[in-house]
Amino acid sequence: MSEKPAKTALTPSTHTAPPAKFSHGVRKGNILQVAGQVGFAPAVPGQAPVPVGPGLREQTLRTLANVEAILQEGGASWEDVVMIRVYLTDTSHFAELNEIYNEYFADLTEAPAARTTVYVGLPAGLLVEIDALAVLG
Amino acid sequence: MSEKPAKTALTPSTHTAPPAKFSHGVRKGNILQVAGQVGFAPAVPGQAPVPVGPGLREQTLRTLANVEAILQEGGASWEDVVMIRVYLTDTSHFAELNEIYNEYFADLTEAPAARTTVYVGLPAGLLVEIDALAVLG
Amino acid sequence: MSEKPAKTALTPSTHTAPPAKFSHGVRKGNILQVAGQVGFAPAVPGQAPVPVGPGLREQTLRTLANVEAILQEGGASWEDVVMIRVYLTDTSHFAELNEIYNEYFADLTEAPAARTTVYVGLPAGLLVEIDALAVLG
Repeated sequence: MSEKPAKTALTPSTHTAPPAKFSHGVRKGNILQVAGQVGFAPAVPGQAPVPVGPGLREQTLRTLANVEAILQEGGASWEDVVMIRVYLTDTSHFAELNEIYNEYFADLTEAPAARTTVYVGLPAGLLVEIDALAVLG
Repeated sequence: MSEKPAKTALTPSTHTAPPAKFSHGVRKGNILQVAGQVGFAPAVPGQAPVPVGPGLREQTLRTLANVEAILQEGGASWEDVVMIRVYLTDTSHFAELNEIYNEYFADLTEAPAARTTVYVGLPAGLLVEIDALAVLG
Repeated sequence: MSEKPAKTALTPSTHTAPPAKFSHGVRKGNILQVAGQVGFAPAVPGQAPVPVGPGLREQTLRTLANVEAILQEGGASWEDVVMIRVYLTDTSHFAELNEIYNEYFADLTEAPAARTTVYVGLPAGLLVEIDALAVLG
């Protein structure tokens, strides 16, 4: 019998509740989509989320950790990710972003995800936003 | 025998013809992708499309209705959507967008879609653009 | 027996090595994701990539050729593409982009892909960036 695949919201314990009616991540069948993550520190109950630091490095590493927490909540890992979208606010950050990115993903054993990087506006204080699409085996 | 799944263009009757060689939405197998929608009023034959109003609320609700029309044309609903991309033009619109979004999706019974919101340029008069990815059961 | 689908990096011979730990394209199962492409001329060993020309037409045609090379490397074609994301830097380029786009895709036999076009910042000298999602039959 063919079952309709469940659609599951992925909400890691490190995350604040979403500020609107969306999920931090969703898994349905073999598709896992991570919502746009930013460099917010782990949630503190009763407090508004704050970015971990003013710099690109801290924010990027925290953003990647936030994406990873959602992947893990859905039974996936970076190895399953096929696409990463990186939103920066300043083209002069590209080289540093790549440096951080390369360090972070140095130990991947599967093909790295495809990536698109574009430069947009983000809310004050945020330098980077990242989302990801995974296809599970 | 395994059939190659058909790729179907989704063109609701409320929509103007696309201004270029793309589809308002495409379904192939269990994947349904909705193209970027804006707040254009339902198509009037022989007239260029116009946004429904100058304000964020009217444009957002119309944009969401335009996305929904394409989902329905493909046999899907908001319940099937795993990712919604929201493009705004002004970070000061975020709170109002969330308010509208929460009202609009208040009655969802499945996990809400993941979402990425970024701030970009849009053609004059447009305040919001939204696209969506659905995975069908 | 159900095999875990392989995840394959797609690297056409026309492409420079990615400037960071990402793939120009990835195929996993029936999903093929092309990374954001720009109008770089075919790779010359030992030289940094350069855009093909200062104009939108040359850059767009080269960008589309770069996307196509990745699709082909993964056993796909434009007919399999369900979504194309077009990033421009100037809203005044929309009409010309559509003209080029329509010519380029004039001979499609399947439903054209859905499309989202937004206006962002790109590194100096680049006027257009395009990525694509394909679902294979």
